[in-house]
Amino acid sequence: MEISVSRKSHFNAAHRLNVAHWSPEKNKEVFGTCNNANYHGHNYDLIVTVTGEIDEETGYLIDTKILKDVIKEEIEDRFDHRNLNLDTEEFRTLNPTAENIAVVIWNLIRKRLNNHLKLNIKLYETERNFVEYSGN
Amino acid sequence: MEISVSRKSHFNAAHRLNVAHWSPEKNKEVFGTCNNANYHGHNYDLIVTVTGEIDEETGYLIDTKILKDVIKEEIEDRFDHRNLNLDTEEFRTLNPTAENIAVVIWNLIRKRLNNHLKLNIKLYETERNFVEYSGN
Amino acid sequence: MEISVSRKSHFNAAHRLNVAHWSPEKNKEVFGTCNNANYHGHNYDLIVTVTGEIDEETGYLIDTKILKDVIKEEIEDRFDHRNLNLDTEEFRTLNPTAENIAVVIWNLIRKRLNNHLKLNIKLYETERNFVEYSGN
Amino acid sequence: MEISVSRKSHFNAAHRLNVAHWSPEKNKEVFGTCNNANYHGHNYDLIVTVTGEIDEETGYLIDTKILKDVIKEEIEDRFDHRNLNLDTEEFRTLNPTAENIAVVIWNLIRKRLNNHLKLNIKLYETERNFVEYSGN
Amino acid sequence: MEISVSRKSHFNAAHRLNVAHWSPEKNKEVFGTCNNANYHGHNYDLIVTVTGEIDEETGYLIDTKILKDVIKEEIEDRFDHRNLNLDTEEFRTLNPTAENIAVVIWNLIRKRLNNHLKLNIKLYETERNFVEYSGN
Amino acid sequence: MEISVSRKSHFNAAHRLNVAHWSPEKNKEVFGTCNNANYHGHNYDLIVTVTGEIDEETGYLIDTKILKDVIKEEIEDRFDHRNLNLDTEEFRTLNPTAENIAVVIWNLIRKRLNNHLKLNIKLYETERNFVEYSGN
Repeated sequence: MEISVSRKSHFNAAHRLNVAHWSPEKNKEVFGTCNNANYHGHNYDLIVTVTGEIDEETGYLIDTKILKDVIKEEIEDRFDHRNLNLDTEEFRTLNPTAENIAVVIWNLIRKRLNNHLKLNIKLYETERNFVEYSGN
Repeated sequence: MEISVSRKSHFNAAHRLNVAHWSPEKNKEVFGTCNNANYHGHNYDLIVTVTGEIDEETGYLIDTKILKDVIKEEIEDRFDHRNLNLDTEEFRTLNPTAENIAVVIWNLIRKRLNNHLKLNIKLYETERNFVEYSGN
Repeated sequence: MEISVSRKSHFNAAHRLNVAHWSPEKNKEVFGTCNNANYHGHNYDLIVTVTGEIDEETGYLIDTKILKDVIKEEIEDRFDHRNLNLDTEEFRTLNPTAENIAVVIWNLIRKRLNNHLKLNIKLYETERNFVEYSGN
Repeated sequence: MEISVSRKSHFNAAHRLNVAHWSPEKNKEVFGTCNNANYHGHNYDLIVTVTGEIDEETGYLIDTKILKDVIKEEIEDRFDHRNLNLDTEEFRTLNPTAENIAVVIWNLIRKRLNNHLKLNIKLYETERNFVEYSGN
Repeated sequence: MEISVSRKSHFNAAHRLNVAHWSPEKNKEVFGTCNNANYHGHNYDLIVTVTGEIDEETGYLIDTKILKDVIKEEIEDRFDHRNLNLDTEEFRTLNPTAENIAVVIWNLIRKRLNNHLKLNIKLYETERNFVEYSGN
Repeated sequence: MEISVSRKSHFNAAHRLNVAHWSPEKNKEVFGTCNNANYHGHNYDLIVTVTGEIDEETGYLIDTKILKDVIKEEIEDRFDHRNLNLDTEEFRTLNPTAENIAVVIWNLIRKRLNNHLKLNIKLYETERNFVEYSGN
C-alpha cells in the first residue's frame, strides 16, 4: 500500500518569457507583459511529493529532513534570488514558463531519489496560477 | 508526458438546497439550514485544471490568460453576484449542491476547450467543504 | 500591561445592498451587481478581538471557549445560513454593507463583555474586502 | 461518473517519534528533535475525501454533515488534545509518524463508510509537511 | 465613530537592493543575495486600508470598487510585471526595499483620497516578510 | 515617520494548562481538555513586528535577516520541539497560556533590540485563536 509524503518550499526569482527565434512583436503578442525586457519576478511556492511504501520499522516513507535538504541543494541554492534567464544554466535557452520550470525541477529531484519512489512536482507561480508534473 | 495547469477564480452567489417534489418537512430534514426559504450564500472558490502536453515552442500547455477569460465568460459572468436558484437557467430545476455546481461548471468549460485537453474542476463552497469532478 | 485575544469564526449569508428610498436606477448605479434583486451571498470570516489585562492566576485574558460561545449565540445563531435583508431584525431597514454588519456585530458582542474589556471586530466579506471597527 | 467530496477538520495533539526496541542513541540519530523525551506537538489539519456517484435526487454524494460527525466521533474525540503515544490505544506501540497517523485515520473512517465509497486521507503535520493515503 | 475598509491587491515585479554610491563589496555584504546583479523577484501582496466615518445613507465608508480602481491605476499599472529598478521612475535612485516601496505606494494613493480619510499600507514581500506604513 | 517590519516564524511544542496550587478538579473545570495530564500540542505561528524610522541610506528599518536570527536564537532554539512545561525554564511555574507565551517571547526579543525600536508580538496557537502583545 502506497503513501505520499509532501514537503513545501519556496524560492524568489526574476524571469521573462521569450522565444529567442521569434520577433519582438510576436513575443510581445504571445507573452504580453510577461515578455517585459527587464524581467519581472515571483515568489514561487514548490510542493515536492514522493510516493512509495512505508518502512515498517521507522514508520517513515522518507524523512522530510532529507527531502528538505534535497530541495535546498537542488532547487533553492540554484534558483533562489536569481534571474532564471540570465543566472541559470537550465533556462539559458529554455523558456522559463511555469510548465518548463516544473519539468526542470522534476528532473533535478528525480536523480536524487531512489528508483522505487514516484515523484510529483506542484509549482505555484502565483496563488492563482500553478502547474503539476509527474513525469508520466 | 503530461502536465497540468490550474487557474484559481471565485464567485459570490446566493442559493438554497431544495428538491421541488419533496414536502417542506422532508426538505428541512434532509438539507437543514441549507434549505432556508430566503436563501443563504457563499464565496465559491474555483480551481480549473487542464491537462495535456507542453507546446515545445512556447513552453505553455495553455496560456493562463485564455483560461482566465474562459472562466470569466462561462462562470463568473453567469454566476457571480447571482441567486443560483432564481437567476440562472442551470439551476432552475437542478438542486445547486456543490456537487451539481461542479458538474455544471465542468460541462460549461469542457465545450470551450480543445478535445485533447483533460479537465478537472475543484470547487470550494467553504474553506472546509469542497468537491472535485473530472468527468470520468 | 494590555494583551489582546482574538477568536476567528465565520457565517454564510445572503444579502443585497439597497437603499429603500432610492429609485431602482440609483441603487443599481451606486451598488452595481451588489444590488441584484434576488440577492447574492458570502462566506463571512469574523475575527473578534478583546483587549485587557491578563489574570495573574489563570494566565488568561479571557477563555477563548467563552468567546467562542458568545460568538455562536450572538452572531452565528442569528446570521448563519440566513438572508440578512429578509431573515434578521438588524438589517430590515439598515443596508447590510460590510461596514454596517461590523458595527451591528460590535454592538451585539459589546453588551456581552465586561466593561473593562475593549472590543475590536474584523469582518472579511471576501478574502480581498474587509472592514474593522473598534467603537471609537 | 464519479465526484469527490472533501471535509477539512483539525486536532491538536502531542507526540514523539520513537522505536521502542532501538537504543536512545539510534532514536536520537534517526528522529532528531522529534524524539524529544517529553514530547512536542502539532495542530494537525485533516482532509477526508470520499469518492462515488452523485445521488440524482438529492444532488449529494454524501451530506458533509454526516462526514463532519464521523470525523468528530472517530478522530477528534479520540485524538484531539491528547498525547498520541500515551493517551491512545492506536499509538501505544505504533510510531506516530504522519504516515502512520494517516493510515490509522483511514482505517477508522473506512469502517464507517458504505463500501461503494472510496476514501482518501490528507494529513498536514505542519503547513510544510503533509501526507496522503488512499488504501491502495 | 471610525471604521476601516481594506482592499487586497497584488503585483509581480523584479528588483535588486543596491546603494549606488557604495562599493559592490559593501552592497553584497549588506544586502546579500538581494543584491544579485541580474535581479530577483516577488509576488507583492498589498493591503490598502482607509479609515473614516460611515456615510449614513449608503452604509459605505468607501466603495471598494473605487479603491480597487485607484490601486489599479496608481500601483498595478505602474509596478506589475516591471523591474522596479529599471522600469519605474520611483526607484531609479531610491533603493526598492519593502519599506521604501510601502512609502512610495502610500504617497501615490494618498493624493487620490479625500483629506478626511486616513491611509494605511501593508505590503507583503513574501508570506514571511512584510511592512506597514501609515504616514505618521 | 515610522514604519513597521514584520517577520513570521513558527515552532511546534507540547504544553498543558495547569495551576499548581489548584486541585485537579478545579484545573479540569477551568482549563478543560487543555489540562490533559499527558499534554497536547500546537504549531505556534509567531509574527514579530518592530517599529521605528527607516535608515535613509539603506532603506531598511531592520534587516529581516537579523530579525530572523534573533527569533531563531531566542525563540525557536528554546521552544521548538519542546514540552513547554517540562523542558523550558520560562514555564516551569508560569502557566503556558497563549497570553503568557506571548509576554515571555516579547521579553526575550525586547532585550535583543535597540531601545529606539518598538516591539509587537502576535502569536497564533491555532488558526482560530491568537493573541497580541506590545508591552504597553
